[in-house]
Amino acid sequence: MSRLSHIDDEGKARMVDVGDKAVTRRTATASVQVRMNHATLTAVRNNRIAKGDVLSVARLAGIQAAKKTASLIPLCHQVPLNHVDIQFTVDTERDLVLITAVVSADWTTGVEMEALTACSAAALTMYDMVKAMQKDVVIDDLKLLSKKGGKSGDFTRSDT
Amino acid sequence: MSRLSHIDDEGKARMVDVGDKAVTRRTATASVQVRMNHATLTAVRNNRIAKGDVLSVARLAGIQAAKKTASLIPLCHQVPLNHVDIQFTVDTERDLVLITAVVSADWTTGVEMEALTACSAAALTMYDMVKAMQKDVVIDDLKLLSKKGGKSGDFTRSDT
Amino acid sequence: MSRLSHIDDEGKARMVDVGDKAVTRRTATASVQVRMNHATLTAVRNNRIAKGDVLSVARLAGIQAAKKTASLIPLCHQVPLNHVDIQFTVDTERDLVLITAVVSADWTTGVEMEALTACSAAALTMYDMVKAMQKDVVIDDLKLLSKKGGKSGDFTRSDT
Amino acid sequence: MSRLSHIDDEGKARMVDVGDKAVTRRTATASVQVRMNHATLTAVRNNRIAKGDVLSVARLAGIQAAKKTASLIPLCHQVPLNHVDIQFTVDTERDLVLITAVVSADWTTGVEMEALTACSAAALTMYDMVKAMQKDVVIDDLKLLSKKGGKSGDFTRSDT
Amino acid sequence: MSRLSHIDDEGKARMVDVGDKAVTRRTATASVQVRMNHATLTAVRNNRIAKGDVLSVARLAGIQAAKKTASLIPLCHQVPLNHVDIQFTVDTERDLVLITAVVSADWTTGVEMEALTACSAAALTMYDMVKAMQKDVVIDDLKLLSKKGGKSGDFTRSDT
Amino acid sequence: MSRLSHIDDEGKARMVDVGDKAVTRRTATASVQVRMNHATLTAVRNNRIAKGDVLSVARLAGIQAAKKTASLIPLCHQVPLNHVDIQFTVDTERDLVLITAVVSADWTTGVEMEALTACSAAALTMYDMVKAMQKDVVIDDLKLLSKKGGKSGDFTRSDT
Repeated sequence: MSRLSHIDDEGKARMVDVGDKAVTRRTATASVQVRMNHATLTAVRNNRIAKGDVLSVARLAGIQAAKKTASLIPLCHQVPLNHVDIQFTVDTERDLVLITAVVSADWTTGVEMEALTACSAAALTMYDMVKAMQKDVVIDDLKLLSKKGGKSGDFTRSDT
Repeated sequence: MSRLSHIDDEGKARMVDVGDKAVTRRTATASVQVRMNHATLTAVRNNRIAKGDVLSVARLAGIQAAKKTASLIPLCHQVPLNHVDIQFTVDTERDLVLITAVVSADWTTGVEMEALTACSAAALTMYDMVKAMQKDVVIDDLKLLSKKGGKSGDFTRSDT
Repeated sequence: MSRLSHIDDEGKARMVDVGDKAVTRRTATASVQVRMNHATLTAVRNNRIAKGDVLSVARLAGIQAAKKTASLIPLCHQVPLNHVDIQFTVDTERDLVLITAVVSADWTTGVEMEALTACSAAALTMYDMVKAMQKDVVIDDLKLLSKKGGKSGDFTRSDT
Repeated sequence: MSRLSHIDDEGKARMVDVGDKAVTRRTATASVQVRMNHATLTAVRNNRIAKGDVLSVARLAGIQAAKKTASLIPLCHQVPLNHVDIQFTVDTERDLVLITAVVSADWTTGVEMEALTACSAAALTMYDMVKAMQKDVVIDDLKLLSKKGGKSGDFTRSDT
Repeated sequence: MSRLSHIDDEGKARMVDVGDKAVTRRTATASVQVRMNHATLTAVRNNRIAKGDVLSVARLAGIQAAKKTASLIPLCHQVPLNHVDIQFTVDTERDLVLITAVVSADWTTGVEMEALTACSAAALTMYDMVKAMQKDVVIDDLKLLSKKGGKSGDFTRSDT
Repeated sequence: MSRLSHIDDEGKARMVDVGDKAVTRRTATASVQVRMNHATLTAVRNNRIAKGDVLSVARLAGIQAAKKTASLIPLCHQVPLNHVDIQFTVDTERDLVLITAVVSADWTTGVEMEALTACSAAALTMYDMVKAMQKDVVIDDLKLLSKKGGKSGDFTRSDT
């Protein structure tokens, strides 16, 4: 199938009509990497070890952004969410923080965009918190890992 | 200087006080890549050639997100922006869309987060528009290219 | 029945309780005219012929406003929408752009306000885009064309 | 000058850069008519005579919408407002409510869109409050009456 | 049961997963007192007697805030509300305004936070309206009076 | 002076025109108490001692709410803030958490409402986090402690 999601036959943007889609349990998992140099990552890790707020602020930003997805992504539907879970792995070998978001809802449309938006806001917030130390942090590899529910069926990234 | 931006001596989150910073012209440029397979990129390129809406929707999403940065990134200040410019390069050799955002303001604090947020929302919106064709699109390499203005001085990424 | 919708016996504002209303498919269609002089309309038409962004931006503004209706109209309920469709007719005889919005939801309350709000935001955005050429553009004839679903029954304007 | 406000040479949407515009006092006045049948207008007038909330709710909706203009009209700048004033005339001869909004700010860009948005939200809210009595109410003649300040100079509608 | 609501075993914040909770009718009632001196209360009472807007503005602020609860309280779910009712008692003996909010929804999670948020915003708005007369107004005794629905059962404050 | 702040001679609501007020440094300090039983306070204290998230989440909610004041309190102006600082005192003698917020801005109007709104949102968020343990927590004594700047002069509560 080779059609763009929100584009009609004339190339114009449109919202998808979800009126005839069934309400089912929808789940989506996404992840993103925040890559920084060793000194910055050490500061993040030390803050975590000291149970500081760096990851807490990023987590909250991600949860709140997931709830706002429909106001950020113009053609997304408003989806009341059951749950948003955000986890962080501070990877001192690869000098990155891996952020994973799992989002679920019982609704007529999927929550992939919510999971990706949660990862994105958490990563941007992490950037905001380390930018006094290092301005060339890179946010990388934001992707959907898997989704469940809905007519289009389940999806799992082949390299997951 | 090796301190996290919004973290106090006890590791707790705080907002930075910008009350004694001077109002100057602040500019920031950021970019991001949306990597997809060749068939999806061809659909995006054909839509662009046909002057369809794919890039227009992503551009608007980016502009609007830049204006909302302070409500997405918890410790950011509200900054009224002079300008947000978003450009797209459809790169058929590397099978990606490169998105670049330039943001400017006359304010007491920089607009790096606004430029990064604009890129991020534009990239997520592009994902939303191609996800019916390809679910394993990757948003990569979101980074600050340069910033100007403010006491901390100008910055240009060394690999830019 | 001659009562104002959100006004109690003492003339005070109140929200309507929709707790005992049935969830049914609700649809509403509204339209509005943006009247301008011939030169301005020609610029809009030429932009459309050249597949420019004028109508695309107005359409997106309308779709996004429909989703925000409950935050704009104080006593409206939050209604997750199935679909928002916005169409434009560039009428070179009467020198106006006719905007039509169709909104649907499966909910306990109607979506008339969402359809009217979508038209209104699309028309304001069109004004914003032509105001450098002509400041005395008029937004006219914003009205509900029809609604379906709900206990109060279907409605179609007699002059439609 | 015959150019669309937010459209570049290729017909694409863009934000206007206000970085080199001077901060001056900007004022804009707009008006709109809400036309209804005599019974509905009488209900509104009686509510006003009884000092009920119909016009108060519409006024508040207008003031709040003016403050949100930049999130409703995609290419508008964020403008902190000095003042929003909204007045109502219940015209029993022409069976309409005339709503007038005056908005002012000291800023680099005008507040026409804020005045028009205030009128629009006040009119939509009035529609919301009378729709149980009459569904074919028409919102008409939304227009800019005058603007002051800024390089493009003052404007007053010729038929005002 | 001695566990904090949104805190996991490691003390970290989390959203509660409501995916397996049943949709039932949820109702919550909260109240708050706005305590002021006699002259200020008299001004409020006179405005009410003259059917002025003081209480109307506070009521609208409360209703609108209830609808925004999920964007104010970081870990709250988005809950579309059936009804928000806000009542005021001007108590000239104790020199206070008592504000009571009743909120209901058919949803998987309770609406206590919505009722408390409505009271809070109404009280803050009342403060805003009297602050030119008296700056040491106190907002006191914001509490949940009762809740109904949901697995955790009904609750009524013992001193109600 | 015995006039309500946002009320005109006819008792109707209005926004105050700040166009002729000088831009000066404005500061406001407010506080609120969250009163709970000893077991609940102990859980909060233990979470704090374990450097958990309870106070962090409440702090972030307060900071974010301060930035949103103009969208919560209908007649407030949009004020870009320099700083929001929120501190918590866990008072095991009186079984309460004392929350203090200090807000500052260089603007034409004061930030009292921002400081009170920050306290209010932080307190509501704390309620949200303990409500599984105790539903009869009371939010008490929300008040302005002091303000500085602006024509009306400085203010300090007499009992502070």
